[in-house]
Amino acid sequence: MANPSLLILAGDGIGPEVMAEVKRIIGWFGDKCGVTFDVSEDLVGGAAYDVHGVPLADATMARAQEADAVLLGAVGGPKYDVLDFSVKPERGLLRLRKEMDLYANLRPAQCFDALADFSSLKKEIVAGLDIMIVRELTSGVYFGEPRGIFPAEDGTRVGINTQRYTTEEIRRVARSAFELARRRNNKVCSMEKANVMESGILWREEVQWVHDNEYPDVELSHMYADNGAMQLVRWPKQFDVIVTDNLFGDVLSDCAAMLTGSLGMLPSASLGAPMANGRPKALYEPVHGSAPDIAGLGKANPIACILSFAMALRYSFDMGDEAARLERAVETVLADGVRTADLMGPEGGTPVSTSGMGDAILAAL
Amino acid sequence: MANPSLLILAGDGIGPEVMAEVKRIIGWFGDKCGVTFDVSEDLVGGAAYDVHGVPLADATMARAQEADAVLLGAVGGPKYDVLDFSVKPERGLLRLRKEMDLYANLRPAQCFDALADFSSLKKEIVAGLDIMIVRELTSGVYFGEPRGIFPAEDGTRVGINTQRYTTEEIRRVARSAFELARRRNNKVCSMEKANVMESGILWREEVQWVHDNEYPDVELSHMYADNGAMQLVRWPKQFDVIVTDNLFGDVLSDCAAMLTGSLGMLPSASLGAPMANGRPKALYEPVHGSAPDIAGLGKANPIACILSFAMALRYSFDMGDEAARLERAVETVLADGVRTADLMGPEGGTPVSTSGMGDAILAAL
Ligand SMILES: CC(C)[C@H](C(=O)O)[C@@H](O)C(=O)O
Ligand SMILES: CC(C)[C@H](C(=O)O)[C@@H](O)C(=O)O
Repeated sequence: MANPSLLILAGDGIGPEVMAEVKRIIGWFGDKCGVTFDVSEDLVGGAAYDVHGVPLADATMARAQEADAVLLGAVGGPKYDVLDFSVKPERGLLRLRKEMDLYANLRPAQCFDALADFSSLKKEIVAGLDIMIVRELTSGVYFGEPRGIFPAEDGTRVGINTQRYTTEEIRRVARSAFELARRRNNKVCSMEKANVMESGILWREEVQWVHDNEYPDVELSHMYADNGAMQLVRWPKQFDVIVTDNLFGDVLSDCAAMLTGSLGMLPSASLGAPMANGRPKALYEPVHGSAPDIAGLGKANPIACILSFAMALRYSFDMGDEAARLERAVETVLADGVRTADLMGPEGGTPVSTSGMGDAILAAL
Repeated sequence: MANPSLLILAGDGIGPEVMAEVKRIIGWFGDKCGVTFDVSEDLVGGAAYDVHGVPLADATMARAQEADAVLLGAVGGPKYDVLDFSVKPERGLLRLRKEMDLYANLRPAQCFDALADFSSLKKEIVAGLDIMIVRELTSGVYFGEPRGIFPAEDGTRVGINTQRYTTEEIRRVARSAFELARRRNNKVCSMEKANVMESGILWREEVQWVHDNEYPDVELSHMYADNGAMQLVRWPKQFDVIVTDNLFGDVLSDCAAMLTGSLGMLPSASLGAPMANGRPKALYEPVHGSAPDIAGLGKANPIACILSFAMALRYSFDMGDEAARLERAVETVLADGVRTADLMGPEGGTPVSTSGMGDAILAAL
């Protein structure tokens, strides 16, 4: 049987640096565990624009469709701020999500013991926090039509976007959330604004339908998204799995990520329907951005990207043990006080560069 | 000259209880300061539905249009959850906002010194916090057409809402934000998702236009709303005035409110264009909801509603000194350790009921 294929799209800013460490980890799994991938690389975001004039070339899109999993670094940077909306780096990422139909975006918000002091929240509020946000990723206001800026009669303008969800779009992401909950603490909280948006009413009804018909064993609650933001700040440990739409998911998952104090640590998985080989279409990427201010300086923390690869092992390749092994190595290194600049707190630690962190994790493996 | 008129809409849940304390404060200003209002009362929300079958009667709407200021308690409760979307308690509030054209919703997120320990955030992150969120309140996805749940050909359904902003809708709320900033720390941060939504691009451009043409002296920055949620959690004191749209404002202002740990304390003002007498159309309400679980028990904290009246003194009646006097009385009472149940922490204090808190504030005045 052929090796599973990985397409690496390192992208912009710190993307290539953090991805370099992931490549070393992939190499380690090949050398030491006989877990070998066919790795290829291509361009996305500003890096693709510089070469092709678009943030994702058609050939790259085709390769992503073929790959068993895509690993993405980060996209964007001030250099590209002046570009037209249609060719901005983000459009490359959004095209991947949409055309691969990666409807379930899994964003764990986890607080690492060694880093609980980093949170702006009190330690007892966040220590041990482990929630999973499932964000719908291919629909809603991100993709709904009509959209655009239109001239008004009096010479002024109107900006329009459309929030649009179908029964099936809601049901499939709800199923992803319920499946995950069954393997966790069996609780799902669904968030929308059903009190002001009809699309939120449909969201609530369809999530409830999936629950009643397919997952009655999972505990389901509903919450307005504004209250959700409050509750995340007040007492995040009340949640297990949260399922929400594309836009609320964008804001709430970033809020949750920041609660943990471990932003440079958080991975994500974006999953679609199973391919012919049974694996889901999948893209893995760190939650952090391209951090142009520190790009190229060897300061970036590669852990979020490395943990994204761990998610790939778990969700694409059914290698839960290997994933757990990699996650444990990261925890060991943190417990040993190994720190990239972003993790360096008042209590000190051993300062390392991006590759120094890679070295430490390889040693711990 | 006739006394200025106040329309009180106490609404549901704890609304009537907290409003009873506000009425005593209004009485005090009349007796002791010669500041007399013509006060009348009417129904909104579930209370209106119970009597009229709608959450806001046309006659009430007309009275609100005439009033110099409207004071609202809270709307909603489990009893009304089964009602159709069109007559839910919230629709009464939304009708007031829309028909009075209250486009600028001012939501201060302020941390009271005596309560800094109540926040889930570390004390040094929130102590002294004082930010003002200006939320657009009459447009965007709350009111855009088309909207609704539509049948699809295959028997499934589609939920649709429309995010829609015009040049003028953006410019006028931006002006409110810049005006406030000039009286504060002269900084405005505007939040949207211009990287994925064209309506966000228009928002950014129009806010920038107002800045460049009318308020070049105010410091303006732009931030994506997801990053805004992160930054609010990470270091809220970086902000002075935040201006954002209706939906982001709903979520971000609740997030900011919870940061302060003083949710039962936070007032809001919703302001529209000036009326013939020069006063803006205005509605004042606490940020907290109707709290049906404690309604009628005399446990509710009336401070948010009382501080909403202080905002009315300041923004509708140009009585900044009287407003400050009332705010100082509240601070004194808190510093003295007077505590409704929601404010009772491990360090203790003097427990009081809703009216006990009213007594204390009257005494401090
Ligand atoms: C880069 C941007 C388009 C993206 C989004 O809004 O989805 C990012 O914020 C994210 O959450 O992955
Ligand atoms: C009650 C509800 C309609 C309202 C809103 O969504 O605007 C509330 O959450 C608020 O923020 O005032």
